[in-house]
Amino acid sequence: MTKQFNHEPKGYQCPFCAIIAGHYDDRGTKEDIVYQNEFATAKIAPKWWVNNPGHVLVIPNEHYENIYDIPADLLAEVYKVVQKVAIAIRSTYGCEGTSTRQHNEPAGNQDVWHFHVHVYPRHGDDQLYQNHDRKRFVDAAARAPYAKKLRAYFAEHK
Amino acid sequence: MTKQFNHEPKGYQCPFCAIIAGHYDDRGTKEDIVYQNEFATAKIAPKWWVNNPGHVLVIPNEHYENIYDIPADLLAEVYKVVQKVAIAIRSTYGCEGTSTRQHNEPAGNQDVWHFHVHVYPRHGDDQLYQNHDRKRFVDAAARAPYAKKLRAYFAEHK
Repeated sequence: MTKQFNHEPKGYQCPFCAIIAGHYDDRGTKEDIVYQNEFATAKIAPKWWVNNPGHVLVIPNEHYENIYDIPADLLAEVYKVVQKVAIAIRSTYGCEGTSTRQHNEPAGNQDVWHFHVHVYPRHGDDQLYQNHDRKRFVDAAARAPYAKKLRAYFAEHK
Repeated sequence: MTKQFNHEPKGYQCPFCAIIAGHYDDRGTKEDIVYQNEFATAKIAPKWWVNNPGHVLVIPNEHYENIYDIPADLLAEVYKVVQKVAIAIRSTYGCEGTSTRQHNEPAGNQDVWHFHVHVYPRHGDDQLYQNHDRKRFVDAAARAPYAKKLRAYFAEHK
């Protein structure tokens, strides 16, 4: 796939590449990582929507900006991890559903220039979409109990 | 994958299985199908959000209810088609981005009991999420010009 429709600025310091390389900060700690294989990493998202705490980002370990650029076989591996994470969330969070989404380019709501998939726990009438503007960053202590549930699940389900 | 967290009623007449079997109606015509391979089918969605006309559904040819049930290898093939469709939409619709999403269970906004992925054309400030309740069914004539663009694209890009 040739690079097209790219928006990453020159000299971009990719926060997801940093986490995958083991450089942590307040938006991504080692404890946030709930699953990792040779292709992709799943971590608790640092920015949450108001009624959907603990949502997860699934990120390819190699840096590609968007769905146009990522090699198809790697995309496939990313979604295999998305599936595992959706089942893990549904099995451990006490939610009643899940949904996934993925954004390309500024007009498509993308704001980190490394392909990623959001996996949300869903609750009856949570108004995830209607509450689109009600999101905020949360600290590592708020994320920790969700990470703990998913790490415990994956310790039992390889 | 064992069946779990299923909501499909007994005797469900699946509208996506009907289309894939060649039984068309006003919500799914032969002309709506823009791409098909042995694993998945892409068609223009019959229900549109107000600022994102022409969005596409990608559907596995075999019936599985949700992301928990679908075999991982088939899920991977579905997302390879999603990628092709996102590139086709971005290349032909005059949009400025794309996004994808997928819903599981009623609490997750699912309302057809056959796994499917939405692929949206995105435009600056289209407010796709905020406009969640501003959606409606459109007729085949409204869908036709979008289908024509994508079919022409796929005739050139196998």
